[in-house]
Amino acid sequence: MSRFDVIAFDADDTLWQNERNFMNAQERFRTLLAAYHSKEWVDERLYEAEVRNLPHFGYGVKAFALSMIETAIELTEGRVSSGDIKSIIDTAREMISADVELLDHVVGTLSALSRTHELMLITKGDLRDQESKLARSGLASHFRHVEIVSDKRPGNYAAILERHGITPGRFVMVGNSLRSDVLPVLELGGTAVYVPHELTWSHEEADPPPAGRAGYFQIGHLGELPALIEQLEETA
Amino acid sequence: MSRFDVIAFDADDTLWQNERNFMNAQERFRTLLAAYHSKEWVDERLYEAEVRNLPHFGYGVKAFALSMIETAIELTEGRVSSGDIKSIIDTAREMISADVELLDHVVGTLSALSRTHELMLITKGDLRDQESKLARSGLASHFRHVEIVSDKRPGNYAAILERHGITPGRFVMVGNSLRSDVLPVLELGGTAVYVPHELTWSHEEADPPPAGRAGYFQIGHLGELPALIEQLEETA
Repeated sequence: MSRFDVIAFDADDTLWQNERNFMNAQERFRTLLAAYHSKEWVDERLYEAEVRNLPHFGYGVKAFALSMIETAIELTEGRVSSGDIKSIIDTAREMISADVELLDHVVGTLSALSRTHELMLITKGDLRDQESKLARSGLASHFRHVEIVSDKRPGNYAAILERHGITPGRFVMVGNSLRSDVLPVLELGGTAVYVPHELTWSHEEADPPPAGRAGYFQIGHLGELPALIEQLEETA
Repeated sequence: MSRFDVIAFDADDTLWQNERNFMNAQERFRTLLAAYHSKEWVDERLYEAEVRNLPHFGYGVKAFALSMIETAIELTEGRVSSGDIKSIIDTAREMISADVELLDHVVGTLSALSRTHELMLITKGDLRDQESKLARSGLASHFRHVEIVSDKRPGNYAAILERHGITPGRFVMVGNSLRSDVLPVLELGGTAVYVPHELTWSHEEADPPPAGRAGYFQIGHLGELPALIEQLEETA
Protein backbone atom coordinates (compact mmCIF):
# COMPACT_ATOMS: atom_id res chain seq x y z
CA MET A 1 0.00 0.00 0.00
CA SER A 2 1.35 3.39 -0.90
CA ARG A 3 2.14 5.93 1.77
CA PHE A 4 0.70 8.95 -0.01
CA ASP A 5 -2.72 9.41 -1.61
CA VAL A 6 -2.11 12.82 -3.14
CA ILE A 7 0.91 14.83 -4.23
CA ALA A 8 0.03 18.52 -4.55
CA PHE A 9 2.06 21.17 -6.34
CA ASP A 10 2.26 24.91 -6.06
CA ALA A 11 2.27 26.57 -9.50
CA ASP A 12 4.02 29.98 -9.61
CA ASP A 13 7.81 29.48 -9.48
CA THR A 14 7.32 25.77 -8.79
CA LEU A 15 6.01 24.72 -12.21
CA TRP A 16 6.50 27.91 -14.20
CA GLN A 17 8.31 31.23 -14.01
CA ASN A 18 6.34 33.96 -12.25
CA GLU A 19 8.37 36.12 -9.92
CA ARG A 20 10.68 36.99 -12.82
CA ASN A 21 7.74 38.67 -14.59
CA PHE A 22 7.03 40.71 -11.48
CA MET A 23 10.70 41.64 -11.19
CA ASN A 24 10.85 42.73 -14.82
CA ALA A 25 7.76 44.86 -14.29
CA GLN A 26 9.31 46.31 -11.16
CA GLU A 27 12.48 47.12 -13.10
CA ARG A 28 10.39 49.15 -15.57
CA PHE A 29 8.65 50.79 -12.64
CA ARG A 30 11.99 51.85 -11.15
CA THR A 31 12.97 53.37 -14.50
CA LEU A 32 9.77 55.45 -14.49
CA LEU A 33 10.71 56.84 -11.08
CA ALA A 34 14.47 57.04 -11.60
CA ALA A 35 14.38 60.84 -11.82
CA TYR A 36 12.78 61.05 -8.39
CA HIS A 37 14.22 58.33 -6.16
CA SER A 38 16.84 55.64 -5.77
CA LYS A 39 16.09 52.08 -6.79
CA GLU A 40 16.25 50.95 -3.17
CA TRP A 41 13.75 53.53 -1.95
CA VAL A 42 11.32 52.74 -4.78
CA ASP A 43 11.54 49.02 -3.98
CA GLU A 44 11.03 49.61 -0.28
CA ARG A 45 8.00 51.84 -0.71
CA LEU A 46 6.43 49.56 -3.33
CA TYR A 47 6.83 46.57 -1.01
CA GLU A 48 5.17 48.55 1.79
CA ALA A 49 2.25 49.38 -0.50
CA GLU A 50 1.89 45.74 -1.60
CA VAL A 51 1.81 44.43 1.95
CA ARG A 52 -0.55 47.22 3.07
CA ASN A 53 -2.90 46.40 0.17
CA LEU A 54 -2.82 42.60 0.64
CA PRO A 55 -5.89 42.50 2.93
CA HIS A 56 -7.85 44.58 0.41
CA PHE A 57 -6.59 43.55 -3.00
CA GLY A 58 -4.99 40.14 -2.34
CA TYR A 59 -2.27 38.57 -4.48
CA GLY A 60 -1.78 38.80 -8.22
CA VAL A 61 -1.13 41.15 -11.10
CA LYS A 62 -4.11 43.49 -10.62
CA ALA A 63 -3.22 44.10 -6.98
CA PHE A 64 0.41 44.69 -8.01
CA ALA A 65 -0.67 47.24 -10.65
CA LEU A 66 -2.81 49.16 -8.15
CA SER A 67 0.09 49.21 -5.66
CA MET A 68 2.50 50.46 -8.34
CA ILE A 69 0.10 53.26 -9.29
CA GLU A 70 -0.34 54.32 -5.66
CA THR A 71 3.40 54.22 -5.04
CA ALA A 72 4.12 56.24 -8.18
CA ILE A 73 1.71 58.95 -7.04
CA GLU A 74 3.13 59.00 -3.50
CA LEU A 75 6.79 59.00 -4.51
CA THR A 76 6.39 61.80 -7.06
CA GLU A 77 4.12 63.81 -4.77
CA GLY A 78 1.51 63.66 -7.49
CA ARG A 79 3.77 64.70 -10.37
CA VAL A 80 3.78 61.29 -12.10
CA SER A 81 2.44 61.70 -15.66
CA SER A 82 -0.75 59.99 -16.73
CA GLY A 83 1.27 58.45 -19.55
CA ASP A 84 3.39 56.71 -16.93
CA ILE A 85 0.28 55.48 -15.14
CA LYS A 86 -1.09 54.18 -18.41
CA SER A 87 2.18 52.33 -18.99
CA ILE A 88 1.82 50.62 -15.58
CA ILE A 89 -1.61 49.32 -16.63
CA ASP A 90 -0.18 48.24 -20.00
CA THR A 91 2.51 46.33 -18.10
CA ALA A 92 -0.16 44.55 -16.05
CA ARG A 93 -2.00 43.51 -19.20
CA GLU A 94 1.24 42.22 -20.71
CA MET A 95 2.05 40.24 -17.55
CA ILE A 96 -1.36 38.56 -17.69
CA SER A 97 -0.95 37.50 -21.30
CA ALA A 98 2.77 36.66 -21.10
CA ASP A 99 3.91 33.24 -22.26
CA VAL A 100 3.93 30.59 -19.56
CA GLU A 101 7.52 29.37 -19.30
CA LEU A 102 7.81 25.98 -17.62
CA LEU A 103 10.69 25.32 -15.26
CA ASP A 104 13.15 22.50 -15.98
CA HIS A 105 12.09 18.91 -15.26
CA VAL A 106 8.43 19.81 -14.77
CA VAL A 107 6.95 17.79 -17.62
CA GLY A 108 8.99 14.65 -16.90
CA THR A 109 8.30 14.76 -13.18
CA LEU A 110 4.55 15.29 -13.54
CA SER A 111 4.34 12.55 -16.19
CA ALA A 112 6.21 10.09 -13.97
CA LEU A 113 4.35 10.85 -10.76
CA SER A 114 0.91 10.97 -12.35
CA ARG A 115 1.33 7.28 -13.19
CA THR A 116 1.68 6.33 -9.53
CA HIS A 117 -0.16 9.05 -7.60
CA GLU A 118 -3.11 11.39 -7.80
CA LEU A 119 -1.75 14.89 -8.47
CA MET A 120 -3.33 18.15 -7.35
CA LEU A 121 -2.52 21.78 -8.09
CA ILE A 122 -2.91 24.29 -5.25
CA THR A 123 -2.17 27.86 -6.19
CA LYS A 124 -3.12 31.30 -4.91
CA GLY A 125 -3.78 34.52 -6.76
CA ASP A 126 -6.31 35.83 -9.24
CA LEU A 127 -8.75 33.11 -10.27
CA ARG A 128 -8.88 33.99 -13.96
CA ASP A 129 -5.14 34.57 -14.25
CA GLN A 130 -4.26 31.23 -12.64
CA GLU A 131 -6.83 29.33 -14.75
CA SER A 132 -5.48 30.94 -17.89
CA LYS A 133 -1.86 30.11 -17.03
CA LEU A 134 -2.75 26.50 -16.29
CA ALA A 135 -4.61 26.19 -19.59
CA ARG A 136 -1.70 27.71 -21.52
CA SER A 137 0.90 25.63 -19.65
CA GLY A 138 -0.28 22.39 -21.23
CA LEU A 139 -0.05 20.75 -17.79
CA ALA A 140 -3.75 20.63 -16.88
CA SER A 141 -4.25 16.98 -17.83
CA HIS A 142 -1.76 15.82 -15.18
CA PHE A 143 -3.91 17.11 -12.31
CA ARG A 144 -6.97 15.33 -10.97
CA HIS A 145 -7.96 18.42 -8.99
CA VAL A 146 -7.11 22.11 -9.19
CA GLU A 147 -7.60 24.37 -6.18
CA ILE A 148 -7.16 28.11 -6.58
CA VAL A 149 -7.23 29.75 -3.17
CA SER A 150 -7.08 33.30 -1.87
CA ASP A 151 -4.38 32.42 0.65
CA LYS A 152 -2.34 29.43 1.78
CA ARG A 153 -2.67 29.33 5.52
CA PRO A 154 -3.21 26.11 7.51
CA GLY A 155 -6.98 26.69 7.40
CA ASN A 156 -6.98 26.84 3.60
CA TYR A 157 -5.12 23.53 3.39
CA ALA A 158 -7.32 21.95 6.04
CA ALA A 159 -10.43 22.89 4.04
CA ILE A 160 -8.99 21.33 0.87
CA LEU A 161 -8.00 18.12 2.64
CA GLU A 162 -11.42 17.84 4.26
CA ARG A 163 -13.26 18.51 1.00
CA HIS A 164 -11.34 15.74 -0.74
CA GLY A 165 -11.30 13.35 2.21
CA ILE A 166 -7.50 13.30 2.44
CA THR A 167 -5.68 12.46 5.67
CA PRO A 168 -2.82 14.94 6.28
CA GLY A 169 -0.37 12.09 6.87
CA ARG A 170 -1.06 10.83 3.34
CA PHE A 171 -0.62 14.24 1.69
CA VAL A 172 2.52 15.78 0.17
CA MET A 173 2.82 19.45 -0.82
CA VAL A 174 5.61 20.55 -3.16
CA GLY A 175 6.51 24.20 -3.63
CA ASN A 176 8.99 27.06 -3.56
CA SER A 177 7.55 29.05 -0.67
CA LEU A 178 8.43 28.13 2.90
CA ARG A 179 5.68 30.41 4.13
CA SER A 180 2.88 29.23 1.84
CA ASP A 181 3.76 25.70 0.73
CA VAL A 182 5.87 24.19 3.51
CA LEU A 183 5.14 25.53 7.00
CA PRO A 184 1.31 25.36 6.94
CA VAL A 185 1.38 21.78 5.62
CA LEU A 186 3.88 20.66 8.27
CA GLU A 187 1.65 22.31 10.87
CA LEU A 188 -1.24 20.07 9.77
CA GLY A 189 0.93 16.94 9.97
CA GLY A 190 1.53 16.57 6.25
CA THR A 191 4.72 16.10 4.25
CA ALA A 192 6.27 19.14 2.55
CA VAL A 193 8.95 19.24 -0.12
CA TYR A 194 10.68 22.59 -0.48
CA VAL A 195 12.07 23.32 -3.96
CA PRO A 196 13.78 26.72 -3.70
CA HIS A 197 13.53 29.02 -6.70
CA GLU A 198 16.24 31.58 -7.28
CA LEU A 199 13.63 34.34 -7.21
CA THR A 200 11.09 34.40 -4.41
CA TRP A 201 9.09 37.43 -3.32
CA SER A 202 10.26 38.70 0.10
CA HIS A 203 6.79 38.26 1.53
CA GLU A 204 6.97 34.49 0.87
CA GLU A 205 10.22 34.09 2.77
CA ALA A 206 10.34 32.47 6.19
CA ASP A 207 12.84 30.61 8.35
CA PRO A 208 13.16 27.01 7.20
CA PRO A 209 12.07 24.30 9.62
CA PRO A 210 14.91 22.84 11.73
CA ALA A 211 16.90 20.08 10.03
CA GLY A 212 15.34 16.71 10.71
CA ARG A 213 11.84 18.10 11.28
CA ALA A 214 9.46 15.22 10.58
CA GLY A 215 7.87 15.42 7.14
CA TYR A 216 10.17 18.16 5.81
CA PHE A 217 12.38 17.63 2.77
CA GLN A 218 14.32 19.92 0.47
CA ILE A 219 15.42 19.16 -3.09
CA GLY A 220 17.50 21.11 -5.58
CA HIS A 221 15.06 20.96 -8.47
CA LEU A 222 11.85 19.22 -9.46
CA GLY A 223 13.73 16.48 -11.32
CA GLU A 224 14.75 15.07 -7.94
CA LEU A 225 11.17 14.62 -6.77
CA PRO A 226 10.30 11.18 -8.22
CA ALA A 227 13.32 9.58 -6.53
CA LEU A 228 12.46 11.23 -3.21
CA ILE A 229 8.84 10.06 -3.40
CA GLU A 230 9.95 6.56 -4.32
CA GLN A 231 12.33 6.47 -1.38
CA LEU A 232 9.63 7.69 1.02
CA GLU A 233 7.18 5.12 -0.30
CA GLU A 234 9.73 2.32 0.22
CA THR A 235 10.39 3.28 3.82
CA ALA A 236 6.68 3.60 4.55
CA MET B 1 -38.36 11.28 -3.26
CA SER B 2 -37.49 14.89 -3.86
CA ARG B 3 -37.07 16.25 -7.34
CA PHE B 4 -34.01 18.39 -6.64
CA ASP B 5 -30.73 17.45 -4.97
CA VAL B 6 -29.20 20.91 -4.86
CA ILE B 7 -30.48 24.48 -4.94
CA ALA B 8 -27.69 26.88 -5.89
CA PHE B 9 -27.71 30.65 -5.44
CA ASP B 10 -25.87 33.46 -7.10
CA ALA B 11 -24.57 35.99 -4.55
CA ASP B 12 -24.15 39.54 -5.89
CA ASP B 13 -27.59 41.19 -6.26
CA THR B 14 -29.30 37.89 -5.49
CA LEU B 15 -28.38 37.63 -1.79
CA TRP B 16 -26.81 41.03 -1.19
CA GLN B 17 -26.52 44.46 -2.80
CA ASN B 18 -23.59 44.78 -5.18
CA GLU B 19 -24.35 46.68 -8.37
CA ARG B 20 -25.46 49.66 -6.28
CA ASN B 21 -21.90 49.95 -4.92
CA PHE B 22 -20.54 49.96 -8.46
CA MET B 23 -23.12 52.57 -9.50
CA ASN B 24 -22.23 54.80 -6.56
CA ALA B 25 -18.55 54.51 -7.49
CA GLN B 26 -19.40 55.30 -11.10
CA GLU B 27 -21.36 58.36 -9.96
CA ARG B 28 -18.24 59.64 -8.19
CA PHE B 29 -16.23 58.85 -11.29
CA ARG B 30 -18.58 60.94 -13.45
CA THR B 31 -18.18 63.83 -11.04
CA LEU B 32 -14.39 63.64 -11.45
CA LEU B 33 -14.79 63.96 -15.20
CA ALA B 34 -17.74 66.36 -15.25
CA ALA B 35 -15.57 69.26 -16.42
CA TYR B 36 -14.52 67.26 -19.49
CA HIS B 37 -17.46 65.19 -20.71
CA SER B 38 -21.15 64.46 -20.38
CA LYS B 39 -22.35 61.75 -18.04
CA GLU B 40 -23.52 59.65 -20.98
CA TRP B 41 -20.19 59.76 -22.77
CA VAL B 42 -18.28 58.89 -19.58
CA ASP B 43 -20.61 55.93 -18.97
CA GLU B 44 -20.27 54.72 -22.55
CA ARG B 45 -16.49 54.90 -22.61
CA LEU B 46 -16.14 53.28 -19.18
CA TYR B 47 -18.38 50.41 -20.27
CA GLU B 48 -16.25 49.95 -23.39
CA ALA B 49 -13.11 49.79 -21.24
CA GLU B 50 -14.68 47.28 -18.85
CA VAL B 51 -15.74 44.94 -21.63
CA ARG B 52 -12.38 45.34 -23.42
CA ASN B 53 -10.56 44.50 -20.17
CA LEU B 54 -12.75 41.52 -19.21
CA PRO B 55 -10.52 38.93 -20.94
CA HIS B 56 -7.47 40.34 -19.15
CA PHE B 57 -8.68 41.51 -15.77
CA GLY B 58 -11.95 39.59 -15.31
CA TYR B 59 -14.82 40.69 -13.06
CA GLY B 60 -14.68 42.51 -9.77
CA VAL B 61 -13.59 45.69 -8.05
CA LYS B 62 -9.89 45.63 -9.00
CA ALA B 63 -10.71 45.24 -12.70
CA PHE B 64 -13.28 48.05 -12.37
CA ALA B 65 -10.69 50.34 -10.76
CA LEU B 66 -8.14 49.70 -13.53
CA SER B 67 -10.80 50.40 -16.17
CA MET B 68 -11.80 53.63 -14.45
CA ILE B 69 -8.18 54.79 -14.32
CA GLU B 70 -7.66 54.01 -18.02
CA THR B 71 -10.88 55.75 -18.97
CA ALA B 72 -10.00 58.83 -16.91
CA ILE B 73 -6.66 59.12 -18.69
CA GLU B 74 -8.22 58.64 -22.13
CA LEU B 75 -11.12 61.01 -21.62
CA THR B 76 -8.98 63.83 -20.25
CA GLU B 77 -6.25 63.26 -22.84
CA GLY B 78 -3.87 62.72 -19.96
CA ARG B 79 -4.84 65.79 -17.96
CA VAL B 80 -6.48 63.90 -15.10
CA SER B 81 -4.76 64.75 -11.82
CA SER B 82 -2.93 62.13 -9.84
CA GLY B 83 -5.12 63.12 -6.89
CA ASP B 84 -8.14 62.00 -8.91
CA ILE B 85 -6.44 58.70 -9.75
CA LYS B 86 -5.65 58.19 -6.11
CA SER B 87 -9.30 58.81 -5.26
CA ILE B 88 -10.32 56.07 -7.74
CA ILE B 89 -8.08 53.61 -5.89
CA ASP B 90 -9.47 54.80 -2.55
CA THR B 91 -12.97 54.16 -3.90
CA ALA B 92 -11.96 50.59 -4.85
CA ARG B 93 -10.64 49.96 -1.34
CA GLU B 94 -13.87 51.32 0.16
CA MET B 95 -15.98 49.11 -2.13
CA ILE B 96 -14.05 46.04 -0.99
CA SER B 97 -14.57 46.78 2.69
CA ALA B 98 -18.13 48.12 2.38
CA ASP B 99 -20.81 46.60 4.58
CA VAL B 100 -22.59 43.62 3.06
CA GLU B 101 -26.26 44.56 2.85
CA LEU B 102 -28.56 41.56 2.53
CA LEU B 103 -31.58 41.77 0.26
CA ASP B 104 -35.07 41.26 1.68
CA HIS B 105 -36.26 37.72 2.47
CA VAL B 106 -32.76 36.20 2.11
CA VAL B 107 -32.32 34.92 5.66
CA GLY B 108 -35.82 33.43 5.90
CA THR B 109 -35.61 31.76 2.51
CA LEU B 110 -32.18 30.23 3.09
CA SER B 111 -33.19 29.03 6.56
CA ALA B 112 -36.34 27.40 5.20
CA LEU B 113 -34.75 25.76 2.16
CA SER B 114 -31.64 24.55 3.99
CA ARG B 115 -33.94 22.32 6.08
CA THR B 116 -35.16 20.45 3.01
CA HIS B 117 -32.36 20.77 0.43
CA GLU B 118 -28.63 21.00 0.09
CA LEU B 119 -27.75 24.61 -0.73
CA MET B 120 -24.79 25.78 -2.78
CA LEU B 121 -23.38 29.24 -3.53
CA ILE B 122 -22.02 29.86 -7.03
CA THR B 123 -20.57 33.31 -7.57
CA LYS B 124 -18.07 34.91 -9.91
CA GLY B 125 -15.55 37.65 -9.29
CA ASP B 126 -12.44 38.16 -7.20
CA LEU B 127 -11.79 35.17 -4.96
CA ARG B 128 -10.77 37.12 -1.88
CA ASP B 129 -13.52 39.70 -2.26
CA GLN B 130 -16.26 37.08 -2.61
CA GLU B 131 -14.92 35.02 0.33
CA SER B 132 -14.79 38.13 2.47
CA LYS B 133 -18.35 39.17 1.56
CA LEU B 134 -19.66 35.68 2.32
CA ALA B 135 -17.93 35.66 5.70
CA ARG B 136 -19.29 39.10 6.57
CA SER B 137 -22.80 38.27 5.30
CA GLY B 138 -23.41 35.78 8.10
CA LEU B 139 -24.89 33.39 5.51
CA ALA B 140 -22.00 30.94 5.13
CA SER B 141 -23.46 28.27 7.42
CA HIS B 142 -26.46 27.78 5.10
CA PHE B 143 -24.30 26.54 2.24
CA ARG B 144 -22.90 23.02 1.99
CA HIS B 145 -20.62 24.07 -0.86
CA VAL B 146 -19.27 27.38 -2.12
CA GLU B 147 -17.98 27.70 -5.67
CA ILE B 148 -16.25 30.91 -6.72
CA VAL B 149 -15.69 30.85 -10.47
CA SER B 150 -14.02 33.14 -12.99
CA ASP B 151 -17.04 33.02 -15.30
CA LYS B 152 -20.50 31.46 -15.48
CA ARG B 153 -20.71 29.83 -18.86
CA PRO B 154 -22.25 26.39 -19.44
CA GLY B 155 -18.78 24.80 -19.13
CA ASN B 156 -18.27 26.31 -15.67
CA TYR B 157 -21.60 24.92 -14.47
CA ALA B 158 -20.94 21.54 -16.10
CA ALA B 159 -17.61 21.29 -14.23
CA ILE B 160 -19.29 22.07 -10.90
CA LEU B 161 -22.07 19.54 -11.46
CA GLU B 162 -19.58 16.86 -12.46
CA ARG B 163 -17.32 17.56 -9.49
CA HIS B 164 -20.22 17.17 -7.09
CA GLY B 165 -21.90 14.30 -8.95
CA ILE B 166 -25.10 16.27 -9.56
CA THR B 167 -27.46 15.45 -12.44
CA PRO B 168 -28.53 18.66 -14.26
CA GLY B 169 -32.18 17.64 -14.03
CA ARG B 170 -31.91 17.61 -10.23
CA PHE B 171 -30.21 21.03 -10.00
CA VAL B 172 -31.80 24.46 -9.52
CA MET B 173 -29.93 27.74 -9.98
CA VAL B 174 -31.37 30.95 -8.56
CA GLY B 175 -30.08 34.37 -9.58
CA ASN B 176 -30.59 37.84 -10.96
CA SER B 177 -28.63 37.50 -14.20
CA LEU B 178 -30.28 35.98 -17.26
CA ARG B 179 -26.89 35.72 -18.92
CA SER B 180 -24.95 34.15 -16.06
CA ASP B 181 -27.47 32.39 -13.82
CA VAL B 182 -30.36 31.39 -16.08
CA LEU B 183 -29.44 30.71 -19.71
CA PRO B 184 -26.33 28.51 -19.16
CA VAL B 185 -28.20 26.34 -16.62
CA LEU B 186 -31.19 25.89 -18.94
CA GLU B 187 -28.75 24.94 -21.70
CA LEU B 188 -27.44 22.11 -19.53
CA GLY B 189 -30.97 20.86 -18.81
CA GLY B 190 -31.24 22.28 -15.29
CA THR B 191 -33.92 24.40 -13.65
CA ALA B 192 -33.34 28.16 -13.38
CA VAL B 193 -35.20 30.68 -11.26
CA TYR B 194 -34.78 34.29 -12.35
CA VAL B 195 -35.12 36.87 -9.57
CA PRO B 196 -34.72 40.26 -11.25
CA HIS B 197 -32.90 42.97 -9.31
CA GLU B 198 -33.68 46.59 -10.03
CA LEU B 199 -30.01 47.22 -10.79
CA THR B 200 -28.18 44.85 -13.13
CA TRP B 201 -24.99 45.62 -15.02
CA SER B 202 -25.67 45.97 -18.79
CA HIS B 203 -23.20 43.18 -19.54
CA GLU B 204 -25.35 40.72 -17.56
CA GLU B 205 -28.48 41.49 -19.54
CA ALA B 206 -29.88 39.08 -22.11
CA ASP B 207 -33.23 38.25 -23.69
CA PRO B 208 -35.31 36.14 -21.34
CA PRO B 209 -36.17 32.61 -22.45
CA PRO B 210 -39.57 32.28 -24.19
CA ALA B 211 -42.53 31.92 -21.82
CA GLY B 212 -43.17 28.28 -21.03
CA ARG B 213 -39.57 27.20 -21.66
CA ALA B 214 -39.08 24.01 -19.69
CA GLY B 215 -37.25 24.55 -16.42
CA TYR B 216 -37.51 28.35 -16.47
CA PHE B 217 -39.27 30.29 -13.72
CA GLN B 218 -39.37 33.92 -12.65
CA ILE B 219 -40.28 35.25 -9.22
CA GLY B 220 -40.65 38.77 -7.89
CA HIS B 221 -38.37 38.39 -4.89
CA LEU B 222 -36.54 35.69 -2.96
CA GLY B 223 -39.39 35.34 -0.45
CA GLU B 224 -41.39 33.59 -3.17
CA LEU B 225 -38.80 30.87 -3.68
CA PRO B 226 -39.79 28.33 -0.96
CA ALA B 227 -43.38 28.17 -2.28
CA LEU B 228 -42.14 27.70 -5.87
CA ILE B 229 -39.77 24.91 -4.85
CA GLU B 230 -42.52 23.24 -2.82
CA GLN B 231 -44.86 23.40 -5.78
CA LEU B 232 -42.24 21.95 -8.13
CA GLU B 233 -41.46 19.16 -5.68
CA GLU B 234 -45.16 18.29 -5.41
CA THR B 235 -45.63 18.04 -9.17
CA ALA B 236 -42.45 15.96 -9.55
